[in-house]
Order: sequence, then structure tokens, then C-alpha cells
Amino acid sequence: MEGEPLSALCSPALVVDVDKVKKNAQRMIERCQKLGIQLRPHMKTHKTIECADIMTAGSRRCIVVSTLAEACFYADHGFDDILYAYSVPFDKVERCAALSERLDLFQVLLDHPDALTLLKQRPLKGGRLWHVWMKLDCGNGRAGVLHTEPEALGLAQAIAETEGVELTGVYVQCGNTYHCRGMEQIQAVVQETTNYLLQFMKQLNAAGISCKSSIGSTPSCSHPVDDMAKLSEVHPGNYVFYDVQQSGIGSCSLEDVAVRVLTRVIGHCPHRNQLLIDCGWSAISLDGAGKLPTGYAVIEGHPDLKLLSMTQEQGRVEPISGPLDYSKYPLGTLLKLIPYHSCATALMHPVYYVHSEGRLLGKWTPTRGW
Amino acid sequence: MEGEPLSALCSPALVVDVDKVKKNAQRMIERCQKLGIQLRPHMKTHKTIECADIMTAGSRRCIVVSTLAEACFYADHGFDDILYAYSVPFDKVERCAALSERLDLFQVLLDHPDALTLLKQRPLKGGRLWHVWMKLDCGNGRAGVLHTEPEALGLAQAIAETEGVELTGVYVQCGNTYHCRGMEQIQAVVQETTNYLLQFMKQLNAAGISCKSSIGSTPSCSHPVDDMAKLSEVHPGNYVFYDVQQSGIGSCSLEDVAVRVLTRVIGHCPHRNQLLIDCGWSAISLDGAGKLPTGYAVIEGHPDLKLLSMTQEQGRVEPISGPLDYSKYPLGTLLKLIPYHSCATALMHPVYYVHSEGRLLGKWTPTRGW
Repeated sequence: MEGEPLSALCSPALVVDVDKVKKNAQRMIERCQKLGIQLRPHMKTHKTIECADIMTAGSRRCIVVSTLAEACFYADHGFDDILYAYSVPFDKVERCAALSERLDLFQVLLDHPDALTLLKQRPLKGGRLWHVWMKLDCGNGRAGVLHTEPEALGLAQAIAETEGVELTGVYVQCGNTYHCRGMEQIQAVVQETTNYLLQFMKQLNAAGISCKSSIGSTPSCSHPVDDMAKLSEVHPGNYVFYDVQQSGIGSCSLEDVAVRVLTRVIGHCPHRNQLLIDCGWSAISLDGAGKLPTGYAVIEGHPDLKLLSMTQEQGRVEPISGPLDYSKYPLGTLLKLIPYHSCATALMHPVYYVHSEGRLLGKWTPTRGW
Repeated sequence: MEGEPLSALCSPALVVDVDKVKKNAQRMIERCQKLGIQLRPHMKTHKTIECADIMTAGSRRCIVVSTLAEACFYADHGFDDILYAYSVPFDKVERCAALSERLDLFQVLLDHPDALTLLKQRPLKGGRLWHVWMKLDCGNGRAGVLHTEPEALGLAQAIAETEGVELTGVYVQCGNTYHCRGMEQIQAVVQETTNYLLQFMKQLNAAGISCKSSIGSTPSCSHPVDDMAKLSEVHPGNYVFYDVQQSGIGSCSLEDVAVRVLTRVIGHCPHRNQLLIDCGWSAISLDGAGKLPTGYAVIEGHPDLKLLSMTQEQGRVEPISGPLDYSKYPLGTLLKLIPYHSCATALMHPVYYVHSEGRLLGKWTPTRGW
């Protein structure tokens, strides 16, 4: 396979442009160096060893994961300083304890006193401490204790005071940047979130507690504000691939997107003014429904086409307006789809095909499951 | 794991009730026997050996698949008489040829003269014939030559007359039954589709051509009409699991649905009147968006709750009306989601956990990719 063109691949296939991956990763590394903040890249988008190596510049240290399966996968491959940034699941405490006892630095996260009780009930062996981040919701609307609630400071204090447990840091997701359009809006949300987090850290300090602070999301870390330098860490993930959604938000340009789904024309339906392609929702996901004028993806080099709808293994493509010129799309024609949401698209693929300037280099195999 | 209750599983997890699977499979076998029509079950929903064994009553013969990866997987496990019911992909002719030369009976499908040319250009070794089904569109609106077009008869004749190729049958999907509500509407669509197909077979006969005919979709085969006895085969697939969508169409009752996604409460968000659960779109898919009053799934035993929205690894659950009683849902509470579309949900899971009456029996591992 090595050295062959992309057209040698059977479709559908997820292809990764390794040069763009490296460029996206390097740019984030430099941005964080310049700001003087620790980069802790998130693995959830790709879940591969190779991409993690690129994001950590080969150190295999200081990463964040979304599932315990990822944590175990990376630990098995020599990674360490892993933050499992997910409200401590009550069914996985024993697995978390095993990782805490095995790695130099395995870190968990919580946002509820009951989770703290759970950790207290399972002291770690060898005098080790549970390294705990507290999740704070500064307007994100996902998990986390609301920063305005008195419970937030109370929980942080409880973590800090609990025997066998260390308050490692305060963790803030700013996924609310996903509603932004353009750098100015992104930076307004990031500034506000940073302010809330800094205020909270000040309250902690006043209570005699010091710990790290972390902020994340690809839009915010693609356009950081100066005050983020006062925080300890950032934890973006999607930026290594980027996607159409991120280009719409303003995190990147469409040229920065490192992944495509290769697909081929498999049918002509002149009675419906449509083409059929061999990419269904099993290959690109249903994410982005109704959000793009070009449907579920952007078809590279064909801004006049729309991926209208899909079944499990087929996509229906039609012109945005006018009749389709079938002579331009004979059966077998190769098309490249730029995904709306690369996290969702990558998850559909058991293997990624990696290339440099259109020449295949090899395969990356992601981990799956929980 | 064997013998343990479902609560021993980490979540999210896809659990399969093997008794319901067997009951759904047996009912379809008996329905087809009664009608006197060959059942060729579709594998696309589950993609496992174990479930295929149940659907074929252990014969490992006469199945239909949606990807070449499935075809190879089943061939490798001793299955034969496999129909790859997908418009012959131009990039996979060599792999199709290899299966045709290796199995007793590997069958392909096409709906365009260019695909026929392609098969002609790759004659099979040992004097073997390409076994070709022609796909006919009788109102389904997916792939297939439109039954009203003169090209349909022309293509069937061309297949029958091509050296090295055999016209094995005419294949009709009736996915348009998915718009129906209740048996009466389903049977109206099935009757019409069957009539169109029988008319087409009559035209073929008049042209001196005889071959098989096949009709499929889970709604149509759950409520067959008598005239389907005049056809050769049916090819439903989803019926072995069923799902909320099929119960809404009227193919089954909600009690027949054999799969659940196990999930646990991982967060309380009183400021939003929501719970967080550990099932995001990575575990249940985004299929069914906006189609159910209960959101992306039905939460078993909790008709008052709605799975409102999801991120990759989390779901937001809120009451359909009124305030949430958090004392009923402490962190760690186990909930069971009945999927809207089991094909889409199963595809998200690298392994299925199989149980009988809530006691674990083992794991099934599906094939993936293309």
C-alpha cells in the first residue's frame, strides 16, 4: 500500500493528511509556548497512538482522555500523566484505582460530593493519592458545578481536605464557544470564561487552597486571550484534525482540515436528479444534520453539490440548483468529503489511512469502546 | 462474567436479550415457511456470527450482506450462498471475483449497464458464472432502475444475454414502508410493491427470461401479503433486534425489541432541571433526532423522561414536564435505553453483551468496516 495514491483505496475510507496533522499540532504547541501555558491535548477525536505522539511531540506525557478505554490504551503504550476528564463513573472506580496505582500520574475528575465519598471509600495502595480535578461549569452547560453556586467552593475545599485525595486542579470546558462565529465572538466567550475561572481560583487562594487550573475547547485554544497565561493548562483536542464545523466557527480555515472520507459514485438516478455514493451514515455519521447548505459534509472541489441524505451504506447527492450533469460523474468517480464533525466521523472508522501529499504512508488504528 | 446480572457491566454497553432474538428470528422463519417463500436474512444490523446462526437456524446458508467486509467475514466462518446486495462497486470487483471463485454461491447486484461491462471484463476462473441480481426501484427511492423505465427490462435482458454472467434474480427493497404507521398502511405499500415486481417478472417471462425475485424490509416481512408467495425470496434484517422506530411503524411491539443501551446517571444539574448520563452519541448514535417525544431513545420504565441532547460521551436527560425528583436518580443509577434505530446503535459498539432474563451469557463481536 505504501507509496500508492489514495485512489488505490477501497471506499469509503477515512484518509488523514499527516502534514496537516503535524502543522495543526505544531501550531498549537507554539501557541501554548508563546502564551506560557501547558498544553494537555485531548485524545477523543482520533484515539490513536500515532496522532498522540504528534500532539505530545513524542513525550507521551500530559494528555487528556474521554473514556477509560482510551486511558488504558494509552497507559498500555507507555503514556503517563493522563487525565481522565469524565465525572468519576460509579461503575469504574476499581479500574480507575488500578490505573492510579500503576501509572506515575493518573488523574480523575468529579463534580459531586458523592463521587468524593466513593474515592474515600477506596484508598489507594502504597500511600498513593487520588489526583482529582474538580469540574466547574462557567457557562458551558454540560457537566460541572456551576461557578456561581456556593457548592463549588465547598466541593473544592472538601476535596482538598479529604485524606488520601489531592485537589490537583479546577477544570473548565468552554464548549459554549461552539455557538460563536469568528475570532471576536470566540475571544469574548474565552475572556468571560477565563475571568470566571480566575475569580474562582482567587476564592480558592483566599481559602488557603492552591491547585492548577485548566481551560479547553478547540475554538478557545485556536484563539487564546492573553489572560489565559494566568491559568496552568489548556486541553483542546479536535484541532489536530479540525473540520467544517470548526471552520464555520472560525477556529481554522477549510484548508486546515486534515481528514476526508473518500467515496465513489455508485449510482445514477436521473429520475430524481441525484447521484448515489458509497458513503452512508456508517462512514460519516449523522452529525451536522441541517446545518450546512451542502448537507452532511462539504464535497471537496464541488461546491455545487449537496449530500442530501443517507442510508446506512449510501448517500444521495444532488446539485444545489439545476440539473445534474451525469457525464461529469461516471460510476466509480472518486469524491472527497470534508466532515462536518471529525470526532463523529473518525469514530465510524476502524482504521484511518494516512497519506502525505496524496501518497499512502500506512494505517492508524484507533481504540474503541469504554 | 457468565451468570452475572447486567448491573455487573460497565456502561455504556449494548445488551442483547437472546431470548427475544431467538423469538424474533423463529417468528420470521415460521412466517416465511407458512407463506412458502425462502428467507434470506440480512446481516447489516448485527454483523455477528452468533446472530447469523440464529437467523439461519444453524444452516449458515442463504444470507444477504451490505458490505464486502461482512461478505468476507461470513465466508471466513463457513457461510455460503451469500448475496452482496450493493450496487457492484467499481473498486471492489477483484475482491468480488475472489469470493465468487472461492464460495459455492456468491452473488452480486447491479443497476447500471456500466457495472455489467465491468463484470464482463473480469471473467471468473474455472468456467464459473457471475451470479447477478438486478436491483429494481419500485418506489423505494434508493438504488435501482425505476420499474417504469424501459431501461429496466433492457438491463435484465443484457444481464441474461451476457457471456459469463447469469441473471440470478430481481431484487426490490421496500424501504418506503418506513413511512407507514400500522399494518394496514404497511400492507398497502407491500401489495403495491409486490404487484410492480410481479408485473416486471411477467414481462421478463414474456421475453423468455426466468429468474428469482426478492423483496425486503422489516416492516413488509413482518406483515407480508399473500401475493408475496408468488415471489422467490424475502430479505429482511432489522427484525432480529427491532427498535423503537419499528414499533412506531407497527412492525412489532416495544416488548419485541431485543436490544438496550445500559447507561448510568453520572451527574445532577438542578440549575438546568437535568440529569447527565454516560451515554452520548458515541453509544446510541444521532439517529432519530426530533422524531420521538422522549428524544433520542425511550428510557425503559421512565416514560416521563426525555433524552434531550448528547455530546460525544454524555447525554442530557430531563423530565417531559415538571421538576426532576433527584432523589429517584442518585449518581450511579442504572437506566436502560431502547434505541430508536438498532442498526445505527449497534454499529457504535465494538462488542455486544448477551443475556437471558438479565443474566449474562457472553459477548458477541461484530465485524466492522468495508
